[in-house]
Amino acid sequence: MDQEQLAICQWLDNNQHRAVKLLQKLVEQPSTQGNEASAQAIVLEKCRQIGLEIDIWEPGGKKLKSHRHFYSTRSNFKESPNIAAVLKGSGGGKSLIFNGHIDVVPEGDLEQWDREPFFPKLENGNVYGRGTSDMKGGNVSMLMALEAISRCQTSIKGDIIFQSVIEEESGGAGTLDAILRGWEADAAIIPEPTNMKIFPKQQGSMWFKVIVHGKSAHGGTRYEGVSAIEKAMMVMNHIRELEKVRNDRITDPLYASTPIPIPINIGKITGGNWPSSVPDRVILEGRCGVAPNEQMEEVQQEMQEYLERLAGFDPWFADHPAELQWYGARWLPNELEPDHLLIDCLVQSFKEVTGEQPVMEASPWGTDAGMISAAGSIPSIVFGPGITETAHHPNEYIPVKNVIQAAKVMALFALKWCRTSKGESN
Amino acid sequence: MDQEQLAICQWLDNNQHRAVKLLQKLVEQPSTQGNEASAQAIVLEKCRQIGLEIDIWEPGGKKLKSHRHFYSTRSNFKESPNIAAVLKGSGGGKSLIFNGHIDVVPEGDLEQWDREPFFPKLENGNVYGRGTSDMKGGNVSMLMALEAISRCQTSIKGDIIFQSVIEEESGGAGTLDAILRGWEADAAIIPEPTNMKIFPKQQGSMWFKVIVHGKSAHGGTRYEGVSAIEKAMMVMNHIRELEKVRNDRITDPLYASTPIPIPINIGKITGGNWPSSVPDRVILEGRCGVAPNEQMEEVQQEMQEYLERLAGFDPWFADHPAELQWYGARWLPNELEPDHLLIDCLVQSFKEVTGEQPVMEASPWGTDAGMISAAGSIPSIVFGPGITETAHHPNEYIPVKNVIQAAKVMALFALKWCRTSKGESN
Repeated sequence: MDQEQLAICQWLDNNQHRAVKLLQKLVEQPSTQGNEASAQAIVLEKCRQIGLEIDIWEPGGKKLKSHRHFYSTRSNFKESPNIAAVLKGSGGGKSLIFNGHIDVVPEGDLEQWDREPFFPKLENGNVYGRGTSDMKGGNVSMLMALEAISRCQTSIKGDIIFQSVIEEESGGAGTLDAILRGWEADAAIIPEPTNMKIFPKQQGSMWFKVIVHGKSAHGGTRYEGVSAIEKAMMVMNHIRELEKVRNDRITDPLYASTPIPIPINIGKITGGNWPSSVPDRVILEGRCGVAPNEQMEEVQQEMQEYLERLAGFDPWFADHPAELQWYGARWLPNELEPDHLLIDCLVQSFKEVTGEQPVMEASPWGTDAGMISAAGSIPSIVFGPGITETAHHPNEYIPVKNVIQAAKVMALFALKWCRTSKGESN
Repeated sequence: MDQEQLAICQWLDNNQHRAVKLLQKLVEQPSTQGNEASAQAIVLEKCRQIGLEIDIWEPGGKKLKSHRHFYSTRSNFKESPNIAAVLKGSGGGKSLIFNGHIDVVPEGDLEQWDREPFFPKLENGNVYGRGTSDMKGGNVSMLMALEAISRCQTSIKGDIIFQSVIEEESGGAGTLDAILRGWEADAAIIPEPTNMKIFPKQQGSMWFKVIVHGKSAHGGTRYEGVSAIEKAMMVMNHIRELEKVRNDRITDPLYASTPIPIPINIGKITGGNWPSSVPDRVILEGRCGVAPNEQMEEVQQEMQEYLERLAGFDPWFADHPAELQWYGARWLPNELEPDHLLIDCLVQSFKEVTGEQPVMEASPWGTDAGMISAAGSIPSIVFGPGITETAHHPNEYIPVKNVIQAAKVMALFALKWCRTSKGESN
């Protein structure tokens, strides 16, 4: 590390207590969907203190809602602002987006928490609470990195655009609106909880329903009916085969340690309404993983065609086809070419900070990187301090050490990237 | 037929319009569970007109509720009276119970009815409406048979006890309470809708739940969880095998034309709560058929032991056994010895009225015959005018011809039975 890098890392180490304080303040705000405003107010104040140029707005409008990648369960985003805040460069360098979402998933069953989810405590070097890992800890890493760059009076050429967005947990409308508002850059980094691994690729996903038909009859003469539950078992076995076919195609070494790179999960089943009747309708609901290099439409098409083959195995399905519907949330996949400068810069910075080679993997879940790449054509990468396994779970936490280390990596990375000339090849 | 028999049959033919009228009045009262009083008032008036000795009471009390065969969804039977009404014999003869239930199942989806379910119309020789076949038509046959015997001044030795009971569709508490009140006899006949077939044996049934456990995980890493839906598929296949084992034991010729004499029906499945999560709990609900010669407890025991074997096929079940629960309604099975005098008398009467040999079968569903036989030790048989296939269905109907013919068979049968000396061997 050079003197400048050392100064930044030193500053971050010296200000660890401020990072913890900021994280605690953010986690104290239960910023579940529709309740993001008070957490955004804290972000805003921090951006102001750092001296960033601030844009704050409520997503919405026809352009957003008619966009092919728009999905939301909400009809409007009133009182759920997005924030973009810029650390201006001197010009001529590559620009960079630091993107993090402010929304958190609900705390779930309180019985399963050992601590209050929205009263974040620092214990044994970890901060506990809903959203610590996913991903307010990552947001704090970004803000601290920006502050370190600013306080150390380090010069950059390209701008760094910090984004605190809504709706990531519900389909990415916040990030999509930031893109539509014109917030673009030459690259984006998203500190989702990767356990300090680097994810140049991410799995996408879509929700689906399969409606399976049967024929009702009295249970005492069940042979006069056709059980939709039994037919649903055939459908599920068939979907298992499709999952195998789809995963056999995946040869990317980034998935080498993943048992099923793009799973198809059946998460819910409901069928029948009376113990003594043969059930005539079952609904399966699930999540279909999408490979980094796949288009959503081609995945839908493949599953549709695969389900149609059921008619060949069982004539029942010829007359009563299983109905496939795509509904609800979807997350776009993402991939970077293996030799992209973004990866190289991030790996270098990671090694400088930790002295170790980073672990590179493809993630088993989607992030806003898919949206940024698909809707904004911005190369995106995911790397963050959170603990993957605790995200969306009771007793979510994040090690403070990770938050600071990720901040160092991101600051050093930003210096490298934003000092590279705009025209320089990726 | 002798003169006396001819006179009775003639009287019934001449009074067909009165049978239709009575049936219509009964069907006009939607006597679903808890709403039986107005239909019972019509029964009561008819019994009074015939000149029967009437007992009317509301079931209840500790003896009923603590009985091992008691089951009901109700906490009390206020305003839901039972009726027993006696045509007294001269003494010394075998007594007979004519048992019919006054409760009907709800009309269900009105969209599927071509006619109003509780405005019974006579069309093309059929009366249409909820409860026509199951079993107000059968009740009318009994009342008309009693009236014919009475009007024709035919002498009998044993008493005929007509019963109009509640709760058959919900577990048999009405008939159980009639037994506990002391209404006993040497035989019982129940005119449930058998399509004019004779059922000396009936399948019983019980409802069960199986709770299947899994382990939750995110759908993107579904291999870290255990799908309760997949485990439920194993449980269902295992139950299918149990059904085969149980049915392979049935060699009774009365079941010769029945594909699966005692089916196990899975009627309902619910599991999981989120498309993107591996489901950790599935509940199967079903109906287990009970053979005429089986005890409920031994069937429960067999299923419990069979489910425990799952641990041998999949160690998951050793640590997370599928939990079997018996709940809700149950109907006791019933069987008569093939050479019982009751069968012989009924077959003879059927042949005298129709000139044909009756079809003998074992029914695929339970009736109060199971309760009468188990709780009252009274030999019971089922034979009635209703159309099996329309019971519990939209557009339920009954042919008037069947109602009159069943009345003739029952009247002639009652004469034979009640003139047999009390001591005469079955």
